[in-house]
Amino acid sequence: MDTGDLQQRIHHRFGQVKLMEAALTHSSHANEQEGDGDNERLEFLGDAVLELCISEEGYRRFPHAPEGQLTRIRSQLVKEKSLAAIARSLDLHRHILLGKGEELQGGRDRDALLADAFEALMGAVFLDGGFAAARKSILHIFGDKWPEAEMLPETKDYKSRLQEVAQERFRDRPVYVLAGTSGPEHEKVFMVDATLPTGACFRGVSSSVKRAEQEAARLGLRALNVPDDE
Amino acid sequence: MDTGDLQQRIHHRFGQVKLMEAALTHSSHANEQEGDGDNERLEFLGDAVLELCISEEGYRRFPHAPEGQLTRIRSQLVKEKSLAAIARSLDLHRHILLGKGEELQGGRDRDALLADAFEALMGAVFLDGGFAAARKSILHIFGDKWPEAEMLPETKDYKSRLQEVAQERFRDRPVYVLAGTSGPEHEKVFMVDATLPTGACFRGVSSSVKRAEQEAARLGLRALNVPDDE
Repeated sequence: MDTGDLQQRIHHRFGQVKLMEAALTHSSHANEQEGDGDNERLEFLGDAVLELCISEEGYRRFPHAPEGQLTRIRSQLVKEKSLAAIARSLDLHRHILLGKGEELQGGRDRDALLADAFEALMGAVFLDGGFAAARKSILHIFGDKWPEAEMLPETKDYKSRLQEVAQERFRDRPVYVLAGTSGPEHEKVFMVDATLPTGACFRGVSSSVKRAEQEAARLGLRALNVPDDE
Repeated sequence: MDTGDLQQRIHHRFGQVKLMEAALTHSSHANEQEGDGDNERLEFLGDAVLELCISEEGYRRFPHAPEGQLTRIRSQLVKEKSLAAIARSLDLHRHILLGKGEELQGGRDRDALLADAFEALMGAVFLDGGFAAARKSILHIFGDKWPEAEMLPETKDYKSRLQEVAQERFRDRPVYVLAGTSGPEHEKVFMVDATLPTGACFRGVSSSVKRAEQEAARLGLRALNVPDDE
């Protein structure tokens, strides 16, 4: 197959062309060909390659984004629909080797199949050229897919907001105390009390301390009439 | 904090000690200290670093393991309980900076907290020394945690087994045909017919073509009295 264009589009020239061929071989084709290698193992690897490259770039691009926001941005970028769109923009579907049954059933245009092939291709780039090559390829491909930092949704970090408000109004911070836990080990709940410098106290209850704190802070913000952007 | 021992145990000497310190700072401590950096963003990154390093090593160690098996091996290695055990064996808990509330509640010995700190530490190694440094550290730490190739559970790849059996008994392969689909788009089911060289036909039905094929193959194996290792 002539893949010069494809290699150009992904910014990687394969040394081991067999890796690229395997990445483009759907199991339905491999099965027809008496068990030639298919792309499923490469997909397993490529999924992790993509995850790390996107995580690292997100980490660097958004130095102030909390972990939850980074996770959401990453999910958007690597979800099946997004990867399938990328695969189409790379003309990957023209290069995928499919079994006859899968072909007849329109497999060449199935999101899942396209996304898998793209992941497999990134796994192949990683094996062929190492992490640096995979990163280069992925950053190129995702170059214009990142959200603008200014466009990121405001995160609901109630605790930080309550701290700001308390500093501003009372020149002091709220204090969080784990007031107790209850329930059996596997469904433990945590009770956290947020006490404002005024003495007003708000209790958050949740299955994690972090969420209980957030909840306590949210209650505090509400009592202070700070809009919580719900 | 004196972390010479720790750095030795993870086979990485930090150039940017601040990264290591951030990795060992739980949010409960950072919150007490007026929002110093905590380890949550590093944990986000480290999770992906770990995932890729373990995926790559699994891919190399088990060249014949199908994707599903690689996924299971990886899950075992990186699940919270496993990472917490590793954190303990590294004496990580002695180095973690905790808030007072979390400390009083025994947070220093919580699996989730320990696993997160270990992930964050691997994220810090990655930022400090690059992918090669993270891989070296992770492969060292997981050195003796891998299953032996011989100990891997036999995978239930009915299709491959049916092909072997058919070749052996009938000198020909079974043929798989997608016989049809039904149901609305979001809960579509696929019907796959596996036809043996003898003409006997077995229908698998599933929400994915792959699983329908496996199911059809399983029925074929059963009809041929091949034990399916259930």
